[in-house]
Amino acid sequence: MPRYRLVVAYLGTAFHGWQRQPGLRTVQGALDQALATLSGDPDAQVVGASRTDAGVHAEGQVVALDYQGRLGARELLRAFNGLTPDDLTVRTVDEVPQQFHPRFDSLGKRYRYLLLAGRPCPPTLRGRVWWLRKGQPLDLDAMREAAAHLIGEHDFAAFRASDCEARTTLRRIDRVELTPLDPYLEARDDERGALLALDVYGNAFLKNMVRIIAGTLVEVGQGRRTPQSVAEALASGDRTRTGTTAPAEGLTLVRVFLPDDPPPAGGA
Amino acid sequence: MPRYRLVVAYLGTAFHGWQRQPGLRTVQGALDQALATLSGDPDAQVVGASRTDAGVHAEGQVVALDYQGRLGARELLRAFNGLTPDDLTVRTVDEVPQQFHPRFDSLGKRYRYLLLAGRPCPPTLRGRVWWLRKGQPLDLDAMREAAAHLIGEHDFAAFRASDCEARTTLRRIDRVELTPLDPYLEARDDERGALLALDVYGNAFLKNMVRIIAGTLVEVGQGRRTPQSVAEALASGDRTRTGTTAPAEGLTLVRVFLPDDPPPAGGA
Repeated sequence: MPRYRLVVAYLGTAFHGWQRQPGLRTVQGALDQALATLSGDPDAQVVGASRTDAGVHAEGQVVALDYQGRLGARELLRAFNGLTPDDLTVRTVDEVPQQFHPRFDSLGKRYRYLLLAGRPCPPTLRGRVWWLRKGQPLDLDAMREAAAHLIGEHDFAAFRASDCEARTTLRRIDRVELTPLDPYLEARDDERGALLALDVYGNAFLKNMVRIIAGTLVEVGQGRRTPQSVAEALASGDRTRTGTTAPAEGLTLVRVFLPDDPPPAGGA
Repeated sequence: MPRYRLVVAYLGTAFHGWQRQPGLRTVQGALDQALATLSGDPDAQVVGASRTDAGVHAEGQVVALDYQGRLGARELLRAFNGLTPDDLTVRTVDEVPQQFHPRFDSLGKRYRYLLLAGRPCPPTLRGRVWWLRKGQPLDLDAMREAAAHLIGEHDFAAFRASDCEARTTLRRIDRVELTPLDPYLEARDDERGALLALDVYGNAFLKNMVRIIAGTLVEVGQGRRTPQSVAEALASGDRTRTGTTAPAEGLTLVRVFLPDDPPPAGGA
């Protein structure tokens, strides 16, 4: 049966995460249902690259499905968008070789946290940003110094949820970028530095790994811990020494890198 | 009584426009109500720079109000955000001289249309973009050629709503910019050129003027009329010769320029 690759965007707010669960509104569930309608097979299922948590958003989730029928890739794009809810959009559909698998073929992923510190939240960003209502702009230099300790291949046992079931905790972080988004805000004097993007590129991620990285780096940015303490927490492998798990609503899966859509030079 | 200037952002979707109307949810009404609560004066009213239509959004509406009480500018910012709904955010509050008036002191405004042509709409842009579902990317060169005819001071009688009550139809357009937003979309191959920003800077605007400019330029971009026809329509002063009134939901009031926050060099 021909295999197709979909790139999918969603607002995670009203979904109970990616993974299909009986009786709950999930992203996989919505796509499975559309596929069942199109294929006539009630058990048809899609496969995703990342099992995003409840509340996490996506701009570039990658999905594979098998479909044999009258519709080509262009028609499938329109049909899926007609059959799925407004908070989920299929961006592209391409036919791919039979052996394509979104998770096994992934070369890495880019996740982004939006952080807003100490300023009112623009209505367009409600539910999409980690809003730190009180306090000063974050100390970017300290956060960058802390992030540098995470680059490379490490045992990230201190950066995973207690119920994470991964067999190995070795992962590679290729880059961490902190970008002030003043132009996006059309920031006025009082607002400069208030909105930040924290982009994390890595080969693969443990459960809650990006959220714990964000929570830990924000504590550094607030002056509540030192950059050096992040290196020590990493080396310890001890979850109690890393920071809080950042809220899901600030997190977006921006991109999944694939052999024909590789990561930027300098690593995934 | 001390006068304050507020910069206000809102999602226009659930508001019946700026202007206070009995029994309807409006932006002015929401701000008036918060001011009445803070001042104890049930008739207190704010003044805005632009009477945005129902459905039109704002990132930088400028508002003036008079308030005498215990709160300073910083506390007013927090109090207003506590008293207004989530789809409206007061970005900044500053005390200003008594004679400040948002409309009379305005040096010009910048409005932005977001245009999405022929691609599925990202969930984060639902309700914020003029979504042209079918058809090809717009012809930017033709649109820019057409827009050039609008630059300068002209009689814009052909670009106003039939119920516009302005006494004079002379207005000045300082610049029109068309910017592909591929980076915003993290656009993939199929999507390049699909999302555009149309920014219009002018000294003042007639009722529906930006919306008719956008409607007319999009017809040019779709090849349904020539750039030259826009010059002819302008010269005719005849509303039947300009294009459709673009939908409100794609339009945002980005900025109101003021003496202490002037327009970019090269005109408002």
